[in-house]
Amino acid sequence: MHNDPIEHLISLLSRLPGLGRRSARRAVLKMLMDPAGKMLPLADALRAAADSVRPCEVCGNLDAESPCHICSDRHRDRKLVCVVEGVADLWALERAHAHRGTYHVLGGLLSALGGTGPDDLSISPLLRRIEGDGIEEVILALPATVDGATTAHYLTDRLKPTGCVVTRLAQGVPIGGALDVLDDGTLAAAFKARRPL
Amino acid sequence: MHNDPIEHLISLLSRLPGLGRRSARRAVLKMLMDPAGKMLPLADALRAAADSVRPCEVCGNLDAESPCHICSDRHRDRKLVCVVEGVADLWALERAHAHRGTYHVLGGLLSALGGTGPDDLSISPLLRRIEGDGIEEVILALPATVDGATTAHYLTDRLKPTGCVVTRLAQGVPIGGALDVLDDGTLAAAFKARRPL
Ligand SMILES: [Zn+2]
Ligand SMILES: [Zn+2]
Repeated sequence: MHNDPIEHLISLLSRLPGLGRRSARRAVLKMLMDPAGKMLPLADALRAAADSVRPCEVCGNLDAESPCHICSDRHRDRKLVCVVEGVADLWALERAHAHRGTYHVLGGLLSALGGTGPDDLSISPLLRRIEGDGIEEVILALPATVDGATTAHYLTDRLKPTGCVVTRLAQGVPIGGALDVLDDGTLAAAFKARRPL
Repeated sequence: MHNDPIEHLISLLSRLPGLGRRSARRAVLKMLMDPAGKMLPLADALRAAADSVRPCEVCGNLDAESPCHICSDRHRDRKLVCVVEGVADLWALERAHAHRGTYHVLGGLLSALGGTGPDDLSISPLLRRIEGDGIEEVILALPATVDGATTAHYLTDRLKPTGCVVTRLAQGVPIGGALDVLDDGTLAAAFKARRPL
């Protein structure tokens, strides 16, 4: 119905998760009331993030620096690595202040149905980190789903020869639920009560 | 918690209507998986809209051209002007294909409590249009709220000397409800059944 720039902007925004067409329209209208104060800063922030953010070469976290601010933090315990499916879970654990070590982002889960095998995930880099960095404990913070359990079993087998302790989050993570929608307290409690596998 | 670009982007996005902090985080993560394909196009679209979109000098609609594409459309009946509170309502009526004439955006409603008087709204330009353009009917598509009714009464008085017919949307617009959240059918029906004041 509308000419290019407004319709184009609404259609791009409405493709973002959590924004339907109606919210996208409202957001665009609100921004159009103050283009210099609302649209241009957002455009600049998007460009700055696109230009600067990349995966951390060590852990796979997304950050403006590589190694990321967590891997570079001297106060973090590098002997304690928490393995997560994706960056969303890493962020959730950070918000919960659940973990004082570092992370490793797998980039997915093993999935027979989805056709995701070990080579599709960041597993070899994890093994290299364990061998190279003297890691003592690997905490598997994976979702309590079939694919999460499959991945945890696989990683436990692969990690056994390294001699490091492998733990997983305590029960308390709801079955079938994603980590990054949990409240911070549940997540922190499950983290603290983690058990050896 | 995060360094500049990601946190900054999340905080700007989460200020948009309809996007909380959680949705903003999910949107940013999704975009960061494909910066060139998702973030830069959105940045460009925001900049293009900010640079090109402005209020139509005739009706107050927001568009990349002024006069806007509705005011410039030769197939529109210029003798029939629909008065709306804001651009959101104009867009809603367009989506409903309710109106074959042109529009006039007031930019608000009279409000004793809100301190909005006639000089704060685009009322003088409306009177000039009516005198200059031979407008025969003015349709008041205002919300059925106290301020909407106050504004409708005030406009009816001001428009009386011009001799043009003043109508309002039929009952069917829910009391206290905003126009732009109505379904298209209700809006089109109320429009068609409009009555003289
Ligand atoms: Zn890192
Ligand atoms: Zn116009």
